Amino acid sequence: MNNFIFYNPTRLLFGKGMINQLTQQIPADKRIMITFGGGSVKTNGVYEQVTQALEGRDYTEFWGIEANPDIDTLKKAIAIGKEKNIDFLLAVGGGSVIDGTKLISAGIPYEGDAWELVKKGSSQVTIPLGTVLTIPATGSEMNNGAVISRRETHEKYPFYADYPVFSILDPTVTFSLPDFQIACGLADTFVHVMEQYMTKSNESYLMDRWSESILRTLVQIAPLIKENKQDYHLMSEFMMSATMALNGFIAMGVSQDWATHMIGHELTALHGMTHGQTLAIVFPGTLRTLADKKRDKILQYGERIWGVTSGVPSARIALTIDKTEEFFKSLGLKTRLGEAGIGDDTIEEIARRFDERGAAFGEDGDVTGEVARRILQNCK
Amino acid sequence: MNNFIFYNPTRLLFGKGMINQLTQQIPADKRIMITFGGGSVKTNGVYEQVTQALEGRDYTEFWGIEANPDIDTLKKAIAIGKEKNIDFLLAVGGGSVIDGTKLISAGIPYEGDAWELVKKGSSQVTIPLGTVLTIPATGSEMNNGAVISRRETHEKYPFYADYPVFSILDPTVTFSLPDFQIACGLADTFVHVMEQYMTKSNESYLMDRWSESILRTLVQIAPLIKENKQDYHLMSEFMMSATMALNGFIAMGVSQDWATHMIGHELTALHGMTHGQTLAIVFPGTLRTLADKKRDKILQYGERIWGVTSGVPSARIALTIDKTEEFFKSLGLKTRLGEAGIGDDTIEEIARRFDERGAAFGEDGDVTGEVARRILQNCK
Repeated sequence: MNNFIFYNPTRLLFGKGMINQLTQQIPADKRIMITFGGGSVKTNGVYEQVTQALEGRDYTEFWGIEANPDIDTLKKAIAIGKEKNIDFLLAVGGGSVIDGTKLISAGIPYEGDAWELVKKGSSQVTIPLGTVLTIPATGSEMNNGAVISRRETHEKYPFYADYPVFSILDPTVTFSLPDFQIACGLADTFVHVMEQYMTKSNESYLMDRWSESILRTLVQIAPLIKENKQDYHLMSEFMMSATMALNGFIAMGVSQDWATHMIGHELTALHGMTHGQTLAIVFPGTLRTLADKKRDKILQYGERIWGVTSGVPSARIALTIDKTEEFFKSLGLKTRLGEAGIGDDTIEEIARRFDERGAAFGEDGDVTGEVARRILQNCK
Repeated sequence: MNNFIFYNPTRLLFGKGMINQLTQQIPADKRIMITFGGGSVKTNGVYEQVTQALEGRDYTEFWGIEANPDIDTLKKAIAIGKEKNIDFLLAVGGGSVIDGTKLISAGIPYEGDAWELVKKGSSQVTIPLGTVLTIPATGSEMNNGAVISRRETHEKYPFYADYPVFSILDPTVTFSLPDFQIACGLADTFVHVMEQYMTKSNESYLMDRWSESILRTLVQIAPLIKENKQDYHLMSEFMMSATMALNGFIAMGVSQDWATHMIGHELTALHGMTHGQTLAIVFPGTLRTLADKKRDKILQYGERIWGVTSGVPSARIALTIDKTEEFFKSLGLKTRLGEAGIGDDTIEEIARRFDERGAAFGEDGDVTGEVARRILQNCK
């Protein structure tokens, strides 16, 4: 096990009806800005629950944080926040709304242009942030990370701020999610685990098993959710899995990869493709490309998640990768670049961008532009 | 899954050499009291590392917090703390030192007698506390619980204060632990998991699997640690497992039992028996007594941890309980009251104490004095 520091102070309030605890979580004297995406929270009852819970409190609404939150939108919120002396943020939405609000939390107390913060990669000076999660997927509700886009230049980068002080997770709010968002959330959760698990062998028995626990839970619930996405128990497991996949709990003392995510971010930046969908395409290609390097871990994963125990190692590895791709297909997602109409031009542009940034992802920092090119060729 | 609130703000610093990060974790202006147990930290190098890290800082040493920390000892520390205006506590030791220091952290700012706090069961007014853990076992380094004894009256009760602000876990400090302490630590960790797992079926797929992950890790490492307790990797897994078993991570949304612990505490209060040893005796008896009620969960546990998959359910349950008892025996622990020279007098006294307190433990609150009596009869 590698040395590590773990810290996660987010208070999680989980379950049906928990939104009504909002008022106890935000000090009475705070000037609140509530941030939203589109209007879905107005049709699924979340907007009503949130505003009822905060009745009589001093709050401003900010609407329109888009999927892959854009710096231009966030700057508008930051300007309003400065003007109104906002000192508490409440993000109501999925990963994009929460990610965007993390940048707002750093941008309000910052004097300069908020894009400078994104380029810098992090800010420790923030105003407090709570969340009401509506889409299980990114884990942003219980970590300090965000991903911010700039459409003008087709850029998309990670950014680190502070942990939400609280996050409210009520599984019933997921009952009205479109099938595609559920599929992308399941894929995103699966690949979050993989980025922290599909690396070096035997770094930690316990962390391996905790990662495998989330993977097995996802494989178990995914087909059942397809049958009934209003099953409280199943959607609770989904919501929990998504949060636990990226809150540091499975990352203690083990190596991390993140090459698939970084390639996926480029597909989103260049083509506007939904994040979870990019991962379903890229991750099987990553495994195919790095199968020799990740050999022992793929064998362990194949055995423990997919029951692949017989045959020579090369055949077991091939079967395991096939089963992984089939899982994403079973969710209803594309798993090849060709299905999305993406060709060699994009592959070359991503390789170029990786080289330009001096990219060195993967658990050994060896996924450069050239390796990204090979991965993407294996996604065709 | 049941509704729940999760919160754990302890910062974990894990790995070889982490003790030298102490000084960054404690603000420079703090008047520190360092609390210790006996002198083992002077022979294993921990005392030297801690005092070197804090060289030039304002600190007082308090020695002599015993196993099952006694209110009389803790009152002495509280008196010194008040006198010296101590505003930061650093517990250096195992669960008893950390537990005792949690009461000190509440006792220093409290005007009355500290035993009143224990009888009340909790205090939110505390001074901050950090820890350097030397014995993996109780999980106290990453939770807000403690257990305080009063030898004068043979009493022992749980007490809740605040979470440590940080805990430093360096597996190398465990290399010199006596075999019996390692055995008790493994048993304690195993039963901590069981108190949160061996309850109702299918409350959470993910939490079940996380609990089973710790159990499987313990079963895997226990015989290997017997061969070589200076194996860094194995002792890291042990130390991590012990902390993760009682920091709330496996308790989200599921029922809890704690009857075995409450009976075990009485055995310690009456006979001074080491905590982990009490659990190795009581837990198999709890399973034998409540096998009907916990039927489905025992079958799941038997299959997933001990590979018990064939035979009629009653035979599988009996075999699973036998394997659990054999595991404790393999650690070198006693598993029957008779081996410890404990007879019916003690059983009756514990039943009487449960009745007197109106005890109602177990996931359904139905472990009364009468049930405790039956459990203990099944431990003979």
